[in-house]
Amino acid sequence: MKADRTAVFDLLAEYGALIDTANFDEWLGLFAEECRYRIVPHENFDRGLPAALVFCDSRAMLEDRIRSLREANKYNIHTDRHVIGLPRVLDDGLMVEAPFAVFQTDQEGETRLFATGLYRDRLEPSGLHLKIRDKLILLDTFAVPTLLATPL
Amino acid sequence: MKADRTAVFDLLAEYGALIDTANFDEWLGLFAEECRYRIVPHENFDRGLPAALVFCDSRAMLEDRIRSLREANKYNIHTDRHVIGLPRVLDDGLMVEAPFAVFQTDQEGETRLFATGLYRDRLEPSGLHLKIRDKLILLDTFAVPTLLATPL
Amino acid sequence: MKADRTAVFDLLAEYGALIDTANFDEWLGLFAEECRYRIVPHENFDRGLPAALVFCDSRAMLEDRIRSLREANKYNIHTDRHVIGLPRVLDDGLMVEAPFAVFQTDQEGETRLFATGLYRDRLEPSGLHLKIRDKLILLDTFAVPTLLATPL
Repeated sequence: MKADRTAVFDLLAEYGALIDTANFDEWLGLFAEECRYRIVPHENFDRGLPAALVFCDSRAMLEDRIRSLREANKYNIHTDRHVIGLPRVLDDGLMVEAPFAVFQTDQEGETRLFATGLYRDRLEPSGLHLKIRDKLILLDTFAVPTLLATPL
Repeated sequence: MKADRTAVFDLLAEYGALIDTANFDEWLGLFAEECRYRIVPHENFDRGLPAALVFCDSRAMLEDRIRSLREANKYNIHTDRHVIGLPRVLDDGLMVEAPFAVFQTDQEGETRLFATGLYRDRLEPSGLHLKIRDKLILLDTFAVPTLLATPL
Repeated sequence: MKADRTAVFDLLAEYGALIDTANFDEWLGLFAEECRYRIVPHENFDRGLPAALVFCDSRAMLEDRIRSLREANKYNIHTDRHVIGLPRVLDDGLMVEAPFAVFQTDQEGETRLFATGLYRDRLEPSGLHLKIRDKLILLDTFAVPTLLATPL
């Protein structure tokens, strides 16, 4: 099946927006029932090293992770801003790669670059929409400057 | 009426490009005759506080604002670069949300992150194009690092 | 001839992705046989000054340049991340302008804003695809913080 490019763009934009507004329940709803979510420093990935910073291979596990992130966030209160660049749509629209920059603003009002990297998402059709089957987040650095207190 | 997604993307791209090239007359032309333009720190907005950093509720007022910004810019000479991320098109294309990062470069040639935030625009059809009816700029910080010498 | 907007978006996304994954041979393949590639600080360009930081007016010259960049990169090992914002499609899709931010991550894992600017590309149809005929990279600063060790 071929996915509509518009639906791919929408899914990515939605993905970032729901984190930035802390709508984590809706955000979880973007994932397929059976899904995988990984954050991997890209040098590990390139060398075939398995070590992931975050690894969830079911939606239940991802829900759990979100709950603990929210707990951690009490000690690192901030807001996120995802700026997602032009994506590369591959494999009839069921695979997409998109570069991103995430900025964080702390309680003093200071905004900093938090992380950059690449989303590599495998999608699956779900009615008129698309859901995320496998989200691989290739982080540009192994040194995440502060606590990963919200999902990327 | 349903707006064309292409027109929505074009309007946003045009919006950033016209500020970055300091074409403020053309930039004003992107707004509807009756329009509103607000810059609001998002924590104020989230709490329902009315305080806006900039508030214009007519195009005349916006023109005025631009004129004074240009005056201010004599004391803070810089260039802007808007990088607007993938937008979320809502309400049949007459509402759009887009994350942005604005970078500024000063006369010494140093480029810095100036501000990040979210555009939330209500659009209206105008012939083959769209115009901005209501632009709400939700800034990620209440602490804008330097003078707001150009529009966001 | 009119170019498809989808093809324009794809070409830009591909352009950034191929640099970020260091696939320079494929990257070269995005250019037409007869092509031009220039990096110019935008203040020079605005004043009509000819000085370019990089100037290649054939693909052979661009290949040569890439080879020497790779040599330089041995002394400045890093990875790039291109975040390309919403583009402005002009002239029936054969001209495109897109703002960009490039972030670099060094071997210590530190990610920094490297450069911002505007791509101004003249394209030409090539079968079902588009190729770059003339790439003008307007850099926001004349002061590139470190060695230009990969193409922008």
